[in-house]
Amino acid sequence: MELRIKLLKWWSTGFPVAILNEKTAEEIGVRPSDRISIRTFSTRPTEITTIIDTAKGVVRKNEIAVSHELKQRLGLKSGQKVNINLAESPKSLESIKKKLNKKTLSEKEILEIIDDVVNNSLAESEIALFISAMHKNGMNLEEITFLIKAILKTGNKLKLKDKFVIDKHSIGGVAGNRTTPIVVSICAAAGGLVFPKTSSRAITSAAGTADVIEMIANVEFSIKQIKKILKKTKACMVWGGALGMVPADSKIIRIEKSLGIDPQSQLLASIMAKKLAVGSKYILIDIPYGKSAKANKQQAIQLKHKFEKLGKFFKVKLKCILTDGSQPIGNGVGPALELTDVIKVLKNEQGLPKDLEKKSLFLAGEIFEMIGKSKKGKGIQLAKEILSSGKAFEKFKKIIEAQGGDLNRIKLAKLSHVVVSKKSGKIKEIDNKKINFLARITGCPLDKSAGLFIHSHVNEKVKKGKPLLTIYSESEQRLNQAVKFYQDKKPIKI
Amino acid sequence: MELRIKLLKWWSTGFPVAILNEKTAEEIGVRPSDRISIRTFSTRPTEITTIIDTAKGVVRKNEIAVSHELKQRLGLKSGQKVNINLAESPKSLESIKKKLNKKTLSEKEILEIIDDVVNNSLAESEIALFISAMHKNGMNLEEITFLIKAILKTGNKLKLKDKFVIDKHSIGGVAGNRTTPIVVSICAAAGGLVFPKTSSRAITSAAGTADVIEMIANVEFSIKQIKKILKKTKACMVWGGALGMVPADSKIIRIEKSLGIDPQSQLLASIMAKKLAVGSKYILIDIPYGKSAKANKQQAIQLKHKFEKLGKFFKVKLKCILTDGSQPIGNGVGPALELTDVIKVLKNEQGLPKDLEKKSLFLAGEIFEMIGKSKKGKGIQLAKEILSSGKAFEKFKKIIEAQGGDLNRIKLAKLSHVVVSKKSGKIKEIDNKKINFLARITGCPLDKSAGLFIHSHVNEKVKKGKPLLTIYSESEQRLNQAVKFYQDKKPIKI
Repeated sequence: MELRIKLLKWWSTGFPVAILNEKTAEEIGVRPSDRISIRTFSTRPTEITTIIDTAKGVVRKNEIAVSHELKQRLGLKSGQKVNINLAESPKSLESIKKKLNKKTLSEKEILEIIDDVVNNSLAESEIALFISAMHKNGMNLEEITFLIKAILKTGNKLKLKDKFVIDKHSIGGVAGNRTTPIVVSICAAAGGLVFPKTSSRAITSAAGTADVIEMIANVEFSIKQIKKILKKTKACMVWGGALGMVPADSKIIRIEKSLGIDPQSQLLASIMAKKLAVGSKYILIDIPYGKSAKANKQQAIQLKHKFEKLGKFFKVKLKCILTDGSQPIGNGVGPALELTDVIKVLKNEQGLPKDLEKKSLFLAGEIFEMIGKSKKGKGIQLAKEILSSGKAFEKFKKIIEAQGGDLNRIKLAKLSHVVVSKKSGKIKEIDNKKINFLARITGCPLDKSAGLFIHSHVNEKVKKGKPLLTIYSESEQRLNQAVKFYQDKKPIKI
Repeated sequence: MELRIKLLKWWSTGFPVAILNEKTAEEIGVRPSDRISIRTFSTRPTEITTIIDTAKGVVRKNEIAVSHELKQRLGLKSGQKVNINLAESPKSLESIKKKLNKKTLSEKEILEIIDDVVNNSLAESEIALFISAMHKNGMNLEEITFLIKAILKTGNKLKLKDKFVIDKHSIGGVAGNRTTPIVVSICAAAGGLVFPKTSSRAITSAAGTADVIEMIANVEFSIKQIKKILKKTKACMVWGGALGMVPADSKIIRIEKSLGIDPQSQLLASIMAKKLAVGSKYILIDIPYGKSAKANKQQAIQLKHKFEKLGKFFKVKLKCILTDGSQPIGNGVGPALELTDVIKVLKNEQGLPKDLEKKSLFLAGEIFEMIGKSKKGKGIQLAKEILSSGKAFEKFKKIIEAQGGDLNRIKLAKLSHVVVSKKSGKIKEIDNKKINFLARITGCPLDKSAGLFIHSHVNEKVKKGKPLLTIYSESEQRLNQAVKFYQDKKPIKI
């Protein structure tokens, strides 16, 4: 059926929107949630299959209303004629059900699924089915390699020809833990390597590295712009999402987080695909484990083995290190407060968070040993030298400058509340999950100035009446909600 | 945060739409697919939790745009102030994950899930997770009773005080098979009972009873209107969806069908809830089994046992019969063609479909025996008498009349194509699934005049060059597509 395009003049950030008049839908024989194909009439027609909604009003019988996203993807103009047809369920849905029934998928089947995720031919509920199938029945290592290849095939790549392209990644789950800017700065300051660090934004945690850096610099660049930055500084700290390198992964992760499920096969594929897309040849993976971390020790060891096998398969040098993830690292939680921690370490300031410094030096040292810049056991020493010489801080400033940034943009929220200890004693436990959620309540990660300052760590002594935690927020309502949450859930135990 | 309502002036038939300006979303800290609560400020405030989309354009910073559905549910006016808050994941999502991890759910947990399905607090992807959990891990009989109770609790009921409120239901899957209008007419003509038959519209098949009756009468009524019809005719044939009796079931089924998954526990709960909502006290369930039917013999027996246990639990007289579902029943597939079959049987016309007549008599006879109107073994005899006396056809006309209908509205599609047999021989197989899909291609169920006429059944002899199947469609494109599908997939084997 031939219909005219009506542009909705808005950009749906959630999902592509295509709306038919109810009468038109009846004529074609589609119902809400059915699929249609939209095909242009040009000499080189473009086509997309998408889920439809129907409406009374908004569109005339001879029209199809599309959101800005669909307009862009098909290059549509208002009033343009397109051909609309009822589309069948994609073959990939059959493969998803196959996985749900514990069958092994072929490379072709996995590629079809990932293709359809990117093309929006699978509805969110169908992607949820895929996630649930991976969650229940897992994937074998070969299937995971297929998944990684498919994610890479459907995205952009950063092609770097340098010999030492290095990268680090943490599987996450530990509050604070902002080692990346420190490790990147130390390594890049050492010279002889390239560190194209792409990071995520927080989805369920208080901040991702991209959220943190965004407080003082741009993090959204094109691939071309990143190559320019790398030419200048040999390192960057940008948001991976802007680069379209792993669009399938981005979409799957968004649904995964909303469901609160994180299948291991997807976690492995997600991290590997991101690292391979930037062309990393040396990869260090940090797996924090412990109570309230993402993994317990046994799961951490299992992940390590699988990552190492995947590294071999994709012919990159990959090392996994298991670290203590039983409590937050650093004092700050939230973009501004984590950034303050990072700068204290880089500037070697009074009261810097020792745990964050120690872990960052360890990670940088591991990287130096991996690429042969230090002999075995001597990496930390080199990292220490570079950090204390001030070269790492110089490099950090250069990277921020190259990303159009300014260190003076750090700003803490105007309201705060100090939680004091009700008794004297030793701190027994600080729960990562509760701390992360508490920081979310204060407004993180979107409100970058909000967050928490943890005054003491596990095993440290506190005195009655002394500060345990300072809560920062721009909104009184949020601050009160946070204080109430603290009192109810007691994330810090003495 | 206080925002003003902007009415979108359209009715989204798919899902409730609430759209925030991107900047506003950032301030509250929500992202697309996050949940917010919308609360009115009146003295008796109404509140709803819903999934949000964000947009550039369409809404101002101080506005929230809502579709007609949300407007109705909250009684909103344009410009009205509402309070918007970030909402947490509902507890029901935890219960869904519990089921996904093979745990048993409590009555409270199941009610929370069903409540949230109805309130739109669960996203489609989360409902998909629930369906996938039921598919993988099933539910025990107690959980199914909880599910039935929850579906009933969240919907309307038809309270009938009559002693003999009877109902029949087929689990579906067999093309044609339009016994319901015949059975209802025979039983209601017998007198002394009430047959408040609510039916579904087709979702994946060529037609539901509601689609068929809709060709000649209204099928959408309020509960009040149905009571009036029942007073007049003691029977009705209406669309259940319009009554809001099982809103949770309707929503789950829609997602289930789009995923192509049909968990047994949901099938059991769905049918039982529908029958109990109309107050049925005598229920006959038809379970067709066979190749290309919904169930094989073993599954059919298992279903029978479970249905009978549920019947006992809910204190209704319930009988299951296993019938031959290995091929389509009747000649017509699609609303107009099935209706023609029904009327031929009711009028005892030349060339009536014997298989459809036989099955209808058998079902009506079973009902007569269940309620004690006939002695055991004598039900079919009574059904035959009523049918051949013309009383059933009279009753059918009365019901159609009470539903504002007119028998003269039957109309066949203007285009047709006759598929002839390429060889002489016996028909070996007619595949229900392929026949259903073929009928969908012709335009069924929305295009009521489209469909198929199957000239012969399995084991009947056909001669080379003689008609096997006539395909009807209003559109040349669809007709050609259907002929191509027939040639590719060969639904009839000789």
